[in-house]
Amino acid sequence: MLKLFYTAHTCSLATHIALEEVGADYSSVRIDFGKTEQRSPEYLKVNPKGRVPALVTDRGILTETPAMLVFVAQSHPAAQLAAMDDPFAFAEMQAFNSYLCSSLHINHAHRMRGPRWVDAEDAHSIAAMQRKVPESVGACFDLIERDMLKGPWVMGERYTICDPYLFTLAQWLEADGVDPKRIPRVVDHRRRMSERTAVRKAIADELA
Amino acid sequence: MLKLFYTAHTCSLATHIALEEVGADYSSVRIDFGKTEQRSPEYLKVNPKGRVPALVTDRGILTETPAMLVFVAQSHPAAQLAAMDDPFAFAEMQAFNSYLCSSLHINHAHRMRGPRWVDAEDAHSIAAMQRKVPESVGACFDLIERDMLKGPWVMGERYTICDPYLFTLAQWLEADGVDPKRIPRVVDHRRRMSERTAVRKAIADELA
Repeated sequence: MLKLFYTAHTCSLATHIALEEVGADYSSVRIDFGKTEQRSPEYLKVNPKGRVPALVTDRGILTETPAMLVFVAQSHPAAQLAAMDDPFAFAEMQAFNSYLCSSLHINHAHRMRGPRWVDAEDAHSIAAMQRKVPESVGACFDLIERDMLKGPWVMGERYTICDPYLFTLAQWLEADGVDPKRIPRVVDHRRRMSERTAVRKAIADELA
Repeated sequence: MLKLFYTAHTCSLATHIALEEVGADYSSVRIDFGKTEQRSPEYLKVNPKGRVPALVTDRGILTETPAMLVFVAQSHPAAQLAAMDDPFAFAEMQAFNSYLCSSLHINHAHRMRGPRWVDAEDAHSIAAMQRKVPESVGACFDLIERDMLKGPWVMGERYTICDPYLFTLAQWLEADGVDPKRIPRVVDHRRRMSERTAVRKAIADELA
């Protein structure tokens, strides 16, 4: 059985949704950032990076959302969440998810995780990073809106592992200072995602 | 035929090496950052993100190194650069490459690309980011050295698409202020990589 380590309001929601979508046999374990459980000796044995998510499998522990999403899809092929036998289609999915993790999520992280990149005591630089977030996150969403979200789902007619990931990061756009009116297709995607049973179940589990 | 848009001394080298390793039928096109060709109207038609690398295929254009590396491997299966039929082994590879793009490369980028995250005129914050790079990049390399690089290749006995990517980012560690003595296994990997024919050929092409 799979075991997901997650924290509410983080990117672990993407994998949580995917597990629900495929009907996986899994349990979930909450890591409380308020108690810095992600840095506890116990959790560092699970994930030496001290972050969520992490997925315990019968072969070992996986981290990094793009990898975990493909793993969930590939080990539950009946759900058809990833076109793994089509190298170009699969690469398009991977490119989308890679952009989310290395551009959109990173830009977002400069609002709350500034001390990763400047000294925590440097209030000027921390504030400077925060001020840039509406622009840098907004630019990512503009690109997704205009060039990347095919519709109705990210990759077109078929729902894939790109959809829970975009939905998860789109949770934060208002708090990041991005006007939802400028990205109506992203916001419509988010609304349709929020109506899916798997999404409701994953969120209910995280917020219970 | 594939066509790779690259710039010397950037992460496009990883895909360049992979193309050489599999013996791909490809051509390469240099994008000159000195002339900001990555922002030219012509190149923005290739990659609206205005970055390298980009890979033109007969089905469309791909971006994002982790996606391109898998594409090169999957479309040249004889070279066996990715264990795509083993969900866990494939996820481990993906997790490694995802860590490189979203943690190691991002931390490195704070030395040269600070204006992505603070205003370009904010000299204090730009300098503050640069000062943190030895620590933040060093922490990534420490984790790779200790927990992730199995040896002799990243994933163990078999050379995979993780190897050219690690090699590419390891080019920059001295300039990032990381003491190579603290990561002897990474440095040994880099040395062995530099002796491979495919690596020499890709570098020679980029620096010609």
